[in-house]
Amino acid sequence: MKAMIYNGPGRRDWEEVPDPRLTAPTDAVVRVDAVTICGTDLHILKGDVPAVAPGTILGHEAVGTVMATGDAVTAVKEGDRVLVSCITACGRCRYCRTSAYGQCLGGGGWILGHRIDGTQAEYVRVPFADTSTHQLPEAVSDEAALMLADILPTSYEVGVLNGRVQPGDIVVVVGAGPIGLAAITTARLFTPSHIVAVDPAATRLEAAKRLGADVLVGAGDDPAAAVAELTGGLGADVTIEAVGIPETFELCARLVRPGGHLANVGVHGAPATLHLEDLWIRNLTITTGLVDTYSTPALLEMVAAGRLDPTTFITHRYDLMDMEAAYRTFSDAAQTGALKVVLSRTGT
Amino acid sequence: MKAMIYNGPGRRDWEEVPDPRLTAPTDAVVRVDAVTICGTDLHILKGDVPAVAPGTILGHEAVGTVMATGDAVTAVKEGDRVLVSCITACGRCRYCRTSAYGQCLGGGGWILGHRIDGTQAEYVRVPFADTSTHQLPEAVSDEAALMLADILPTSYEVGVLNGRVQPGDIVVVVGAGPIGLAAITTARLFTPSHIVAVDPAATRLEAAKRLGADVLVGAGDDPAAAVAELTGGLGADVTIEAVGIPETFELCARLVRPGGHLANVGVHGAPATLHLEDLWIRNLTITTGLVDTYSTPALLEMVAAGRLDPTTFITHRYDLMDMEAAYRTFSDAAQTGALKVVLSRTGT
Amino acid sequence: MKAMIYNGPGRRDWEEVPDPRLTAPTDAVVRVDAVTICGTDLHILKGDVPAVAPGTILGHEAVGTVMATGDAVTAVKEGDRVLVSCITACGRCRYCRTSAYGQCLGGGGWILGHRIDGTQAEYVRVPFADTSTHQLPEAVSDEAALMLADILPTSYEVGVLNGRVQPGDIVVVVGAGPIGLAAITTARLFTPSHIVAVDPAATRLEAAKRLGADVLVGAGDDPAAAVAELTGGLGADVTIEAVGIPETFELCARLVRPGGHLANVGVHGAPATLHLEDLWIRNLTITTGLVDTYSTPALLEMVAAGRLDPTTFITHRYDLMDMEAAYRTFSDAAQTGALKVVLSRTGT
Amino acid sequence: MKAMIYNGPGRRDWEEVPDPRLTAPTDAVVRVDAVTICGTDLHILKGDVPAVAPGTILGHEAVGTVMATGDAVTAVKEGDRVLVSCITACGRCRYCRTSAYGQCLGGGGWILGHRIDGTQAEYVRVPFADTSTHQLPEAVSDEAALMLADILPTSYEVGVLNGRVQPGDIVVVVGAGPIGLAAITTARLFTPSHIVAVDPAATRLEAAKRLGADVLVGAGDDPAAAVAELTGGLGADVTIEAVGIPETFELCARLVRPGGHLANVGVHGAPATLHLEDLWIRNLTITTGLVDTYSTPALLEMVAAGRLDPTTFITHRYDLMDMEAAYRTFSDAAQTGALKVVLSRTGT
Repeated sequence: MKAMIYNGPGRRDWEEVPDPRLTAPTDAVVRVDAVTICGTDLHILKGDVPAVAPGTILGHEAVGTVMATGDAVTAVKEGDRVLVSCITACGRCRYCRTSAYGQCLGGGGWILGHRIDGTQAEYVRVPFADTSTHQLPEAVSDEAALMLADILPTSYEVGVLNGRVQPGDIVVVVGAGPIGLAAITTARLFTPSHIVAVDPAATRLEAAKRLGADVLVGAGDDPAAAVAELTGGLGADVTIEAVGIPETFELCARLVRPGGHLANVGVHGAPATLHLEDLWIRNLTITTGLVDTYSTPALLEMVAAGRLDPTTFITHRYDLMDMEAAYRTFSDAAQTGALKVVLSRTGT
Repeated sequence: MKAMIYNGPGRRDWEEVPDPRLTAPTDAVVRVDAVTICGTDLHILKGDVPAVAPGTILGHEAVGTVMATGDAVTAVKEGDRVLVSCITACGRCRYCRTSAYGQCLGGGGWILGHRIDGTQAEYVRVPFADTSTHQLPEAVSDEAALMLADILPTSYEVGVLNGRVQPGDIVVVVGAGPIGLAAITTARLFTPSHIVAVDPAATRLEAAKRLGADVLVGAGDDPAAAVAELTGGLGADVTIEAVGIPETFELCARLVRPGGHLANVGVHGAPATLHLEDLWIRNLTITTGLVDTYSTPALLEMVAAGRLDPTTFITHRYDLMDMEAAYRTFSDAAQTGALKVVLSRTGT
Repeated sequence: MKAMIYNGPGRRDWEEVPDPRLTAPTDAVVRVDAVTICGTDLHILKGDVPAVAPGTILGHEAVGTVMATGDAVTAVKEGDRVLVSCITACGRCRYCRTSAYGQCLGGGGWILGHRIDGTQAEYVRVPFADTSTHQLPEAVSDEAALMLADILPTSYEVGVLNGRVQPGDIVVVVGAGPIGLAAITTARLFTPSHIVAVDPAATRLEAAKRLGADVLVGAGDDPAAAVAELTGGLGADVTIEAVGIPETFELCARLVRPGGHLANVGVHGAPATLHLEDLWIRNLTITTGLVDTYSTPALLEMVAAGRLDPTTFITHRYDLMDMEAAYRTFSDAAQTGALKVVLSRTGT
Repeated sequence: MKAMIYNGPGRRDWEEVPDPRLTAPTDAVVRVDAVTICGTDLHILKGDVPAVAPGTILGHEAVGTVMATGDAVTAVKEGDRVLVSCITACGRCRYCRTSAYGQCLGGGGWILGHRIDGTQAEYVRVPFADTSTHQLPEAVSDEAALMLADILPTSYEVGVLNGRVQPGDIVVVVGAGPIGLAAITTARLFTPSHIVAVDPAATRLEAAKRLGADVLVGAGDDPAAAVAELTGGLGADVTIEAVGIPETFELCARLVRPGGHLANVGVHGAPATLHLEDLWIRNLTITTGLVDTYSTPALLEMVAAGRLDPTTFITHRYDLMDMEAAYRTFSDAAQTGALKVVLSRTGT
């Protein structure tokens, strides 16, 4: 089969590799019907994630069809249309038993396209298939489901739910890339009174507005002034960090009110300064986290019921065989305006 | 001034009485600018609430203007436009200190139009004014605010929040009178996937549909079958009782899934049967409650921001002096289709 | 092997049956090293639980040694000393994925000694072994662990945790049989200020006192007066029902304060009356439930650390081969004073 | 009367000043029967808290007798024995209405001995007396109650409750001064399986052991190794920072397990480094906070019931007139071993 291989820093290749096979009774092999590319894949390609061995197939998001299952698999069967989640869950360990699949100690967690071969291929082996895939209802399209492999549960769990957004809240989302936009979308599920989007890029702020942001803070604007005006000087109920650099984290810490929540969603590569000399007295709650995907079933319900349209994030579509072109478009998001690209089996 | 007096079972009179005066340093006297009538007022008039002494002014909901305040009042001042909440809070007792104002042990709770003179008058004395009134932002009209005196916080706190409605849930609301309709409206703040409205009256179901119910269960329909179809036989995540009779409570207990929540909002006059022989094993949570009005500030935020339109519940409008006509319309809701009637100072 | 068979209402036999074998890749076969008898087993023998087919081996609690495992089992292996929980969890279904194993939809829940052969035998087949057994640390004895198969997690989860016992609370436990006593013991983990034990039997109240009850309400005493005296007339923060008849449930509803919690642990065979005409206004939370055993790991930690001594509940000890004698003792608890009886392989 | 005055950095004087008087209808004047000194008072004396104006009476903790009350005060009256809490609560603002008194926007919060005259005097004026004092039951001594003015609710709310300590948890307390020791004491209310105390001073570790710490990590010991050994390398469920310097905060961040809680109680004067490059993926919850004193009623219940003995923290006792000697002892804790000093009216 064809697959997108990480061949060391700076080098990716769409090449022929052997088909995956069942290796454990809890495995499934899934035919990839739709797949996407994540910002994390670009990080891996830069060499930022040394745990990825050269030769690994990239990708941790897919929608597909079950081709084969191990003897112990009972929740899905050949022919089922499933979502392959970015998080694999052994289902047995201390963390999995409390729905904290992202912290799985039993060989799961984020492994696809990281520690084992991933989804940017014609087929993929999914370990612990019973607890790492979700059957798809007819009412949910492949494209919509694909957005639930990573981006939507990540922004919802790590941003909105960790941040404890409540009806009537004033919520600030710093960063309006795909994750920040998904945080705006899923924050709206709780009917905050106002959402403030902060991003230097005007095009991203336009997308934020379209998805429901009420106040836009762009390059040259003062986020503190904007939040103070909206909150009578008190600060926001919830701030969501969706960039991943020290400055934006520290901005979130300045913008949140006493008693409020700061939910970090960004992937950071450097430490931030925590101004405890100001914050110790402010009854703050700060959360960090990798997605656990415990919310995927509820998100699927909302998509099926038409309460949530995740296809808004899709800007470009390709045939699965055009992986290289899709990567070029996604890598050059500043020029192409790409949010999420979808590759699917259009010709077959 | 003029006021609507309860003169014993079956007898109400719109008559001249002395103006109220400050009697404690924590009191305020408020000019009533808008007032409404509650189903509870009709119960009092039938003689169902013996705690109400003949001679008492009826009413526990109002929007008005502060005319005078006692020495200890600091949160509101003469000229302020305020919401007079159905719950009076001493602010000092064990319950008030945990936001459970409805259970106030310090002389508050539901007292207006019950244990002391109420709001269906030209003026009203409000005890513990600092903790029993809410300043109104300009963006919230008198009529919109008036719906936040009782009906909206009641359905939201006792129905939706006690029932722990979450995004993606399937919610059943039994009873589509004003409280049930308000429960449908406020349940939507959490984006459930489906709301099922159950009521024998077709006109009420139409209102339920307009406010956001997805599935309507009318006279002759089988609620259990409707819920089973929607939930694959499992039962609803949340059922909200908004009628107040044993049959509807027991229906709610049958319709909820294992691990789900039954939130009772209805005012009951008779015991219900709790089928513990079936329910002991079902991990059910059942809640009851009088409104505490802790959610009023958040609801005001949402109204001010345009996230919630409480005026939808208003079907009839009168001048304050036409109290008797308003009572006739509201008492005959089956004919008039009245949900909430508003009386205001239109001529002044 | 020898096993205790249910041979229809009123008839139990300790007889020779074939050894169990692995039938699914997720199974384990466990040698029973210690086993106990539950009040539920006596109910089954009376014919009260028609789902139990004649010929079924009784028992749903055991400590043992893994003899064989299916291909898909990874969390335990041959030779491991394990706790066999009263709840079997598929680990894959909607309920198992939220730690609500008792409501398992995938073939688990309470099945041992109920829908499939149980633990009162020399060996037992345990389905879904990865998620239905717990490895035992050396510091926890067989006897101590055995009490964590059912009685301790049941009283802790369904009584204490559902009831939301908090430090400083006043807690009433109605019923001082094994489950009520275990509720007293596990309530103390949260340092309530007072525990009131209610039971007509003086010997049970003595046991309650020994385990930490502060106030004893016996035959002829007035529970309402005792609680009123302790709480200034307000009512208890939490009431725990540990009997299973309408009268004790209704007593719990009368004894709880406004805003308090009633946690039902008892297994009921008849409906109770819920006095909604009094309770609708009291902000009550009522919970029911079968144990999920999500707390078993934490309980094991506490036993291993010496924070909790579950062997207090053991009154009688037998060799595994003396099953019939153990049943006689346990069945006649009123005379023998039996709380929990333990059968173990003393001779081998 | 006599009072301890802050006369600018480095200068305190026990001098004659006018008696306090009622200045608002919500005030009370309280005779100070017992008072203590807080580490914060020493910070003020160093000039670290510029908000304190020279001439201010120090002290924010007291037990006393109500001498006079304003017209609006209803919860306490002349002659009542009361606890004067370190937090004054207006009872009316957004924060007070959600029990977050420490963040009071209505003129309360930490004001005694800070923005207004404090408790280290013969008498003190207490604003908002209804919501800022607690009536004392007979069963609670002055000395025991005095420990509930600040140290116990601070360690309990900001450390133990914010940290969400649960039965069976492994809890690390970094810093074994008075606040750290109080955190150990109040953590035990939830029956953690192990408490690890970290402090370089051997005498403090001895106190920690006496109060219930199971594992002691002293100068030269490796806290990470100790926690790893106890937790199988996973990390602690909860870490509580009770020192207030960057190094100890950062240590707490290293010692906590994925999914765990870091509760900061220390008062910080400098920023810390937050290693988001490691922590972003670890599902951490970090909390900060000033005490709100919402837990004071529950703590009083536990003291009255004998569940908690706060007098353990008292190492030195003085007559109220020996304020200067008490300050010398407390300021030189390294030599005197002082934890808490109590001054009371012994001669009168």
